[in-house]
Amino acid sequence: MSSPIDLSEIKALTFDVFGTVVDWRSSIIRELREFGISKGTVADWAGFADKWRAGYAPSMDKVRKGELPWTDIDSLHRIVLERLLEEYNITGLGEDEKEHLNRAWHRLTPWPDSVEGLESIRKRFTVTTLSNGNLSLLVDLSKYGGLTWDCILSSELAGHYKPDKEVYLTAAGLLGLSPGQIMMVAAHTDDLEAAKDVGFGTAYVSRPYEFGPNAISDEAEDMPFDIIAQDFSDLARKLGA
Amino acid sequence: MSSPIDLSEIKALTFDVFGTVVDWRSSIIRELREFGISKGTVADWAGFADKWRAGYAPSMDKVRKGELPWTDIDSLHRIVLERLLEEYNITGLGEDEKEHLNRAWHRLTPWPDSVEGLESIRKRFTVTTLSNGNLSLLVDLSKYGGLTWDCILSSELAGHYKPDKEVYLTAAGLLGLSPGQIMMVAAHTDDLEAAKDVGFGTAYVSRPYEFGPNAISDEAEDMPFDIIAQDFSDLARKLGA
Repeated sequence: MSSPIDLSEIKALTFDVFGTVVDWRSSIIRELREFGISKGTVADWAGFADKWRAGYAPSMDKVRKGELPWTDIDSLHRIVLERLLEEYNITGLGEDEKEHLNRAWHRLTPWPDSVEGLESIRKRFTVTTLSNGNLSLLVDLSKYGGLTWDCILSSELAGHYKPDKEVYLTAAGLLGLSPGQIMMVAAHTDDLEAAKDVGFGTAYVSRPYEFGPNAISDEAEDMPFDIIAQDFSDLARKLGA
Repeated sequence: MSSPIDLSEIKALTFDVFGTVVDWRSSIIRELREFGISKGTVADWAGFADKWRAGYAPSMDKVRKGELPWTDIDSLHRIVLERLLEEYNITGLGEDEKEHLNRAWHRLTPWPDSVEGLESIRKRFTVTTLSNGNLSLLVDLSKYGGLTWDCILSSELAGHYKPDKEVYLTAAGLLGLSPGQIMMVAAHTDDLEAAKDVGFGTAYVSRPYEFGPNAISDEAEDMPFDIIAQDFSDLARKLGA
């Protein structure tokens, strides 16, 4: 086991966003329900939301393998949306309606502890997003949810998606810090493992309801990360912030 | 004369930083004085500050013409600092001391109306930096001065310096907006003219003391910009924010 990171060296925290900071699932279900009511359409919107979220990963992997040129998350979401609208037999939508629906991903509600927890942590550290979401999406959802950051960093700036190492290294370069001065915060182990591999500190935050009340989330016990936190308040305490 | 921009279309404002948001000159003079006291060195620190500011422009122009590879502002400031330390016969400094001095540019004080004005404008618009300063410098000085942005955009992300058009177009792309939905805010006409050339709206803010009490600043009357403001409070009012 590698030696634990020196917390006193940490200057900045980079946050995964979907699932870690915002509750994408219930937000997307809410938006789909509103859409359904406006259209008089009834469907399994929770299932639609889960398929929408799951659907973009294969396309993102194609970008990661170089089989697709750089394509941002808005565009990947739109491709999956078109497929799901067909699958669910929802027809006759105008471009404006589709675009509004696709931008549901710009209107995601933070977890109850996110805004206040970030505010505390920001008093002592530089806090930034480090998400696969494109920059404009991250700006919009931060404004929507009242989240305040010191800057917005995105995979888009690296032209690579997490967990490619280029994303973490680009963030370090832009922050003018060495990897050992940065801590990645995420509710997902693959993200943290990749960050750890390039020398970042790591903080796992438990978000047991990210995939809904019945889904199984990553198990926090015995994880090889520097901090294991219940939520952002707990993270702030453990950081001494 | 081109027709005035439709203000109701504006979604985001991009702010020049040095001189427009922060008072670099008195901040740098203050830092140099503190340095002088700690070293028992007396010098014309105002002159040193002015030469430091003026000195990086030729190097930046070399980057713009492709004669130098991309070099960030921290590095350009350091090159000029080394030259000035020699000119002022200041010798025997350690690397840490030089680096602390160079990072004076990360500790610049906002003009008195900047924090509050930005806060008002941010309630109605997306507000971001669009500066030749590197991203980490902008993050640091914003934290230092209590400036809150929706995101930090820098020439560094374009690999070009203002007034190259790539800087403005990269910002528009990252914000997911068309140039006509963005307004550039600056105390410098060349920046605004370049932004206007690619279709941005423009707001000139008067900062008569940027270059000191006796310097001549750009003249605001009859300028071909969409808004002419006395300061950020006036800008907020004219934007209806």
